[in-house]
Amino acid sequence: MFKRILIANRGEIAVRIIRACRELGIETVAVYSTADASALHVQLATRAVCIGPAKAAHSYLNQTAILTAAVESGCEAIHPGYGFLSENDEFADLCAQCGLKFIGPSGDVIRKMGNKAAARELMIKAGVPVVPGSDGVIESAEEALKVAERIGYPVLLKASAGGGGRGMRRVFSPEELPAAFASAQAEAVACFGNGEMYLEKLVLSPRHIEFQIMADQQGHVVHLGERDCSIQRKNQKLMEESPSKALSPELRQAMGRDAVKAAQSCGYEGAGTIEFVLDPDGNYYFIEMNTRIQVEHPVTEMVTGQDLVKEQIRVAAGLPLSFTQEDVKLNGHAIEVRINAEDPAKNFAPMPGKTEFVHFPGGCGVRVDSALYNGYELSPFYDSMVAKLIVHAPTRLAAIRRMRRVLEEFIVEGYPTGADLAHLILYHPDYLKGDYNTSFIENNLDEVLSWMEKGAPLADEEER
Amino acid sequence: MFKRILIANRGEIAVRIIRACRELGIETVAVYSTADASALHVQLATRAVCIGPAKAAHSYLNQTAILTAAVESGCEAIHPGYGFLSENDEFADLCAQCGLKFIGPSGDVIRKMGNKAAARELMIKAGVPVVPGSDGVIESAEEALKVAERIGYPVLLKASAGGGGRGMRRVFSPEELPAAFASAQAEAVACFGNGEMYLEKLVLSPRHIEFQIMADQQGHVVHLGERDCSIQRKNQKLMEESPSKALSPELRQAMGRDAVKAAQSCGYEGAGTIEFVLDPDGNYYFIEMNTRIQVEHPVTEMVTGQDLVKEQIRVAAGLPLSFTQEDVKLNGHAIEVRINAEDPAKNFAPMPGKTEFVHFPGGCGVRVDSALYNGYELSPFYDSMVAKLIVHAPTRLAAIRRMRRVLEEFIVEGYPTGADLAHLILYHPDYLKGDYNTSFIENNLDEVLSWMEKGAPLADEEER
Repeated sequence: MFKRILIANRGEIAVRIIRACRELGIETVAVYSTADASALHVQLATRAVCIGPAKAAHSYLNQTAILTAAVESGCEAIHPGYGFLSENDEFADLCAQCGLKFIGPSGDVIRKMGNKAAARELMIKAGVPVVPGSDGVIESAEEALKVAERIGYPVLLKASAGGGGRGMRRVFSPEELPAAFASAQAEAVACFGNGEMYLEKLVLSPRHIEFQIMADQQGHVVHLGERDCSIQRKNQKLMEESPSKALSPELRQAMGRDAVKAAQSCGYEGAGTIEFVLDPDGNYYFIEMNTRIQVEHPVTEMVTGQDLVKEQIRVAAGLPLSFTQEDVKLNGHAIEVRINAEDPAKNFAPMPGKTEFVHFPGGCGVRVDSALYNGYELSPFYDSMVAKLIVHAPTRLAAIRRMRRVLEEFIVEGYPTGADLAHLILYHPDYLKGDYNTSFIENNLDEVLSWMEKGAPLADEEER
Repeated sequence: MFKRILIANRGEIAVRIIRACRELGIETVAVYSTADASALHVQLATRAVCIGPAKAAHSYLNQTAILTAAVESGCEAIHPGYGFLSENDEFADLCAQCGLKFIGPSGDVIRKMGNKAAARELMIKAGVPVVPGSDGVIESAEEALKVAERIGYPVLLKASAGGGGRGMRRVFSPEELPAAFASAQAEAVACFGNGEMYLEKLVLSPRHIEFQIMADQQGHVVHLGERDCSIQRKNQKLMEESPSKALSPELRQAMGRDAVKAAQSCGYEGAGTIEFVLDPDGNYYFIEMNTRIQVEHPVTEMVTGQDLVKEQIRVAAGLPLSFTQEDVKLNGHAIEVRINAEDPAKNFAPMPGKTEFVHFPGGCGVRVDSALYNGYELSPFYDSMVAKLIVHAPTRLAAIRRMRRVLEEFIVEGYPTGADLAHLILYHPDYLKGDYNTSFIENNLDEVLSWMEKGAPLADEEER
């Protein structure tokens, strides 16, 4: 097992990793920007090293500074968390060259799965269903028209190197296609320096269902069930749950098997997530693989009883997985709400400020993952997420009711958050039924915001 | 199900009950003394009623004020929590007379189990092992000498109405007995207005093992495994865990069966605890029954996944138990540490004060039950417990390591607490082995306190 690990991240995920290390008896080296000198991860780590100024490009993305800190402090491994350098193949390669274990898959695997067109081809070879579309890169609008003709409209144009909606266009008819292709490609070149495009069938009313997988260096791959992450605002997940109401046991088994196949096909190691879209008819398609731990991993931990971050560290140290597929049982229901310092009524604009007062919920079946403390000043330089509130209960309805009371107990003063919005969503009839897709927020935001004043509708009778 | 419940308590247990009610959709009426106007339970309840001045005798023990508040606010039931009126048979009777459901067993059952000599006789009849001793009350020192002769020294003199060590004397030889009898009886008369004495064999090096039971009005009784509560200071539990290292599966089954028998023998209803002493040879004896929810109930909730307070409310409303004995599975290991505002180096003297700053631990497998918040001023009138920190992990060692890091993360400023002492206990070789009894603190306090300066000894190799 490692003696000392550097954590190349900040905020709640850095705290999460420090907690796992402490419990494993591993020393931790935190890195921080000048804006984060008083951050919680700095205080909880065994040691902390300042790696540069506030802007992430100069600190948390500064590969040289981080590698230097790791080598000079005698670390044997680097945990990248999520975001920042966590899916940077070059950084993973550099770690290896410096004799540091990157806690995650190899640079090669990150490269393979990071290129959407390459990952898609790999999945087709592995027999994992992908959205019908072009076989690899499309060179021109003419070629795009032909493929769209074959798979049928509506279609989605996507940049190979894309992400966060950029380089992406929905196209509903052949007439729209040429202009959409030109503008998407131009955007892809501008944003990612890479104009490679591909085309897929546009899945309408999809659910975002992702499977957690864990793989060791001995070639064992296990999946830990799914997370339904369809409640999103601006393509950012807001609430996640496990299991999903949309999956029958048979569908779960089929998707889980394909998730394991996907990870095996690329020689994966560590924690990873296979993202699928699921259409209303129960067809599912591979979208992409996230080659890192994810924000929403605690819901999986609560329903499976496994500690995913500890397991990441164990397998990175060469130990075999501590559980088999048969050991994984989904027990009860878990929901996570991400609390962001933002104003939902102002298009979710980030609203950093000083934490004048914070009071976290507690009690039975409640988990809080956060780097907040009383008096902590949020930095405008980083992500607006300030806490993750997670509940676990025997049934979905009990979990929903638990999350309502958790959000009622949670108090933070100094900036607005989305806590009230999430609370109201938990009263929405479609949410209660589990009948929602990725358009839920878009379609229901105005209605739910209107409840802020007049109150949520009375809960369903079925709820009693 | 009830629409509205009055909570006749304060502090963390009042908060705990409010949480359960909120999740069940039940309105809550809090009661509070003038010293508690800004307490958390007052803020979280649907309504709050002031019932008198700070001294508990005039508020939280003021039966008339509480019953009046319940009736006037339209409550259907009263949850007494633990302490205060929770084991007061007269109060349970009065609730019934006022048409209020007392959430717990009937006054008759409380009376039966509250009288130690009567409870003992009941257990003998039910076939539950009790400590060898007098058959009922002992009238004189002469009679005590005869019984002691028969069962063998050392023996323990106990007052029928006793508790907290008062009216109790250890006797190691016949010469000591007459004086011990006289002084214990005098103390019992002074403390409890009842001089009835009985006598038992003194069990040396005992562990305090208690079984959680839950019973419904339909006569179903289920046990939820044990808690090892042997880590005590001044007869007050400090750290509890489940399962106990001292119990084999066979012993657990035998004791669990006897715990169920004990509850059945008195026609029990609701949550209760059967306390046993366990000697080093694996012999166990019934000591007493606690006819209420207990401080340490969360460790049972974490290993069984059941919500005991919700279940209390359900069965009080007449619903059958939501689980059977077969449904109860002990999963992993849980430990609770009670955080008291006190100074362990000064004989655990209570040290109330203002909470200048508090930061609770969080993350995977961590539960916090507390009524503390930043700025909250502890009242000297009540119990010194300010928080319960509970962890759950797949193994005992993982739970110990988790609790260590939880105690390292926990910060409270404004008064001393026993958190550091508990943290050091988690490094004690005997604690690590699970080899401890109720004399652990007494025997090891000085050694463990000496580690405060020089640090805990290096953890056992076996731990790695």
